[in-house]
Formats: sequence, C-alpha cells, structure tokens
Amino acid sequence: MSYTAIVITISDRSFKGVRKDSSGPALCEMLKENNFEIIGTKLIPDDPDDIKNTLIWACDTAKADLVLTTGGTGFGTRDNTPEATKAVIEKECPGIPEAMRAESFKITPYACLSRETAGIRKQSLIINCPGSEKAAKENFGAVIKAVIHGLAMVHNIDHENLKMG
Amino acid sequence: MSYTAIVITISDRSFKGVRKDSSGPALCEMLKENNFEIIGTKLIPDDPDDIKNTLIWACDTAKADLVLTTGGTGFGTRDNTPEATKAVIEKECPGIPEAMRAESFKITPYACLSRETAGIRKQSLIINCPGSEKAAKENFGAVIKAVIHGLAMVHNIDHENLKMG
Amino acid sequence: MSYTAIVITISDRSFKGVRKDSSGPALCEMLKENNFEIIGTKLIPDDPDDIKNTLIWACDTAKADLVLTTGGTGFGTRDNTPEATKAVIEKECPGIPEAMRAESFKITPYACLSRETAGIRKQSLIINCPGSEKAAKENFGAVIKAVIHGLAMVHNIDHENLKMG
Repeated sequence: MSYTAIVITISDRSFKGVRKDSSGPALCEMLKENNFEIIGTKLIPDDPDDIKNTLIWACDTAKADLVLTTGGTGFGTRDNTPEATKAVIEKECPGIPEAMRAESFKITPYACLSRETAGIRKQSLIINCPGSEKAAKENFGAVIKAVIHGLAMVHNIDHENLKMG
Repeated sequence: MSYTAIVITISDRSFKGVRKDSSGPALCEMLKENNFEIIGTKLIPDDPDDIKNTLIWACDTAKADLVLTTGGTGFGTRDNTPEATKAVIEKECPGIPEAMRAESFKITPYACLSRETAGIRKQSLIINCPGSEKAAKENFGAVIKAVIHGLAMVHNIDHENLKMG
Repeated sequence: MSYTAIVITISDRSFKGVRKDSSGPALCEMLKENNFEIIGTKLIPDDPDDIKNTLIWACDTAKADLVLTTGGTGFGTRDNTPEATKAVIEKECPGIPEAMRAESFKITPYACLSRETAGIRKQSLIINCPGSEKAAKENFGAVIKAVIHGLAMVHNIDHENLKMG
C-alpha cells in the first residue's frame, strides 16, 4: 500500500532565494524510495502563521497521509516550526522526535538542540525534521520504517495485528 | 513498605468482550511480584471522558499510590489515553515514558509509536503503558524499580536521602 | 566568545539554612571552566511564584545568556521547578532534558525520575538541573558543549554554518 506525502521547506533564506533548498528534495527522494507518493511540496518563510496555514492546508485540504517539514527547529528568533506545529496537532507523538534525537545524538552531541515535534491532525501525521540536509536525512531515516507502520494505525488498518500501541 | 495500585485496561474491543484482556492481568502480576497491593482493576472503553473519570476516581477517591493504564496509546482515532491523562495530571513526569520508549526501542523500532505519558495527580502517580501484553510488560519493567523510588518522593519520604531530584 | 550565566538554587531546606547548597557552587565551577561569566547567583525556596519571578528577573532584567536552576525537579509536593519554568518560557527545548536524562540513565535507573525541562525566554536559555550535586554535574555535563552551540543560535550568530537546526 502506498501513502501520500507533502514536504514543506521552512526557511527565510531559501524563500528569498539566497540559500538553495537541498533538504526538501532529499526528503522527497527518501520518501519515493520508500514507496510514498509525493502530492505536493512547498517552500515558505519562517513565519508562524505561514507555517500553521500551510500545515492546515496539507492536512485538511490536500489530506496528505504524511506531512514532513524541514527547517525552523533550532534556537534562533525565527525558529518557529515546533510552536506552529503544536498549535495545529490534535495528538502529540513524542516518541518520534525522541527517537530521531536519540539516534542523531549517537552521531553528534548537537542533536539535543533540535526542537522538532510530531503529531496527528485528523488523518495526517506531521513530523518536523531539522533544516540541514544531513541532519534531516539522519533524523527521518531513524524512524521511517516505524512511521509507515504508524500511518496504518492512523487509518485504523489491521490495528489488532500491529505490534505496538 | 507496600504501595497500593490500580490497573485500568482501556480498550473498546476488550470492553465489548471481543478481545481478551491479557495486559491488565499481566501488569497486576508484575505489581504483586514487586510488593504492590492491587486495590482495584477496571476495564473501560477508549472514550476520553470515561478515561478521565476513571483516572480521577483512582486518584481522588480510591487514592491509589500508583495508577497504571494499558491501551489507547497508539495512533488510531480511538487512541485517547495520553490526552485524557494529560488533562488530569498536575505535574508531568516525562522521564518515565522516555525511558520506557528508549528501552523498548532497543527491541523494536515501533517503540517510537507509543504516545504514553506519565504524571502526578495529588498523591497518585499515573503511568500509561501500551496495550499489547508484551509491550506493556517490557515498558513498565524498564522503570518499575525507579517508580518505587519515585513513589517515596511523592509521599515526601526520606527525601533528602534519595539519590535524584 | 564568552557567555553570561546565572545559577539559581531552588531548595526550601537550603533557603532555611538546614541544608548546605553544594550544587549551585558546583555548577558555577563547571560554567567558569567553560568560559562562562557568572553574573549572579540566587538561593530561593521551592515556591512557584518565587521561582517564576526569579527566572523572569534573570532573563528580562539581568539578561543572562544562560540561566541554570538546581533543585525542585523531583516528585515531591514542593517540587515545582519544571512547572514554573514552563510558565515563563516561550519555546521549549525538549532535546536538552532528554539528553540529560538519557545520559544519566546509563548511570542510574533513577534518572527517569527527574522532571527537568529547558526552554528559551527572549534571549535567555533556561535549563533545569537536579538538586543533588552529583546528578546536577552529570546532567549538565552531558549537554554543556551543545549548550554553548545553542547559545550562538539564540543570538543568531553564524546560523548558516551551524551543524544542526
């Protein structure tokens, strides 16, 4: 079974065209390799309302099974992705960012600086990834197999036979 | 010293009688082996209000030292246990679910899908466990020794001689 | 570059003079060894309003880059530090306490009982540490190098060249 995905790059600098967005395309590539159908990509600035509105569009209008963000999870003034995500999710999935940070922490102690969150809105799972291509791939790679399993749970598929929950 | 415990199984299917509840009894067994006195067990559906009311009863009326839940921590529409728990706790204890998921993650990558939470209401410690018997035992087993220590802290026993906090 | 720090010891017993505060001085020592300038220390009781007001003073008036607390992160009635911290931060930094607890968990299973949190208020990073000197040093020691990196991010310094976020 194939799931649909939308990838949202959140970066003032990429939006202005002064930084090439390599993380968004890298996440799309990973998703395709794992049998996801990419139904949309967006490049938006680090504005809280832009982030919230784009997440709501991805979940409620485009109805993507999976919504990945990249960028805006750091400690800077314009790092607003986790707060915008928390404002739109109905159920938090803390184990996903925990696992991403814990796996990343084996590679670099800076992993603890990523403030990424994850959660469910309606029938969509939203996951924040860091802004750097390397960190985004490492982080999402640590959980992608479990995420596919989690999407089956969101859609209440074969729930009783799933191993967790 | 012996602590009191209540175990709450949260499952629409077990409540309707179409799924045997093996997790609740398994957690009771673990608790008895660790010198807990089981003062009550409940089997309720995945309804948010039922969960909240049962947790409030266990803490405020039955005054259990430890309240364990099993079930309702996944990604499905009817997985409401963490949200209901967060609605009734006064203090969150994030290290308990973190440790449960981290230990479980060594066994299965699906561990990151458990949304379990833990926290204190009045003099009671509430901990969510997954719904599967195997996962519930693995998860709670990872923290049971620390939990007994934590219960002494809730009751302000010998606080100065405890090693953490 | 040198960052400023304030260390706040939160303990009814130390405030009353019946317990010597060794954790606050130990954290100051660690900070100095890592090139921080200590611009203030405080010893306050476990009162939620005292904690909130002192944190606000440290961030808004003293404008410390880093605000460390020690104490009040356990399970007792008077352990109020995480709740007071959450009430004043604008952005939560969950990876910092996760990493502190995970590293501490390798030493003792009781690590999961620490309820410490971390977050950003304006241009200040607040991190809770446990109350015991040994645990405070172990916990903060696990993240200090990353924290210095994080402070550069708070001040938007060289953001594009940082490895995470």
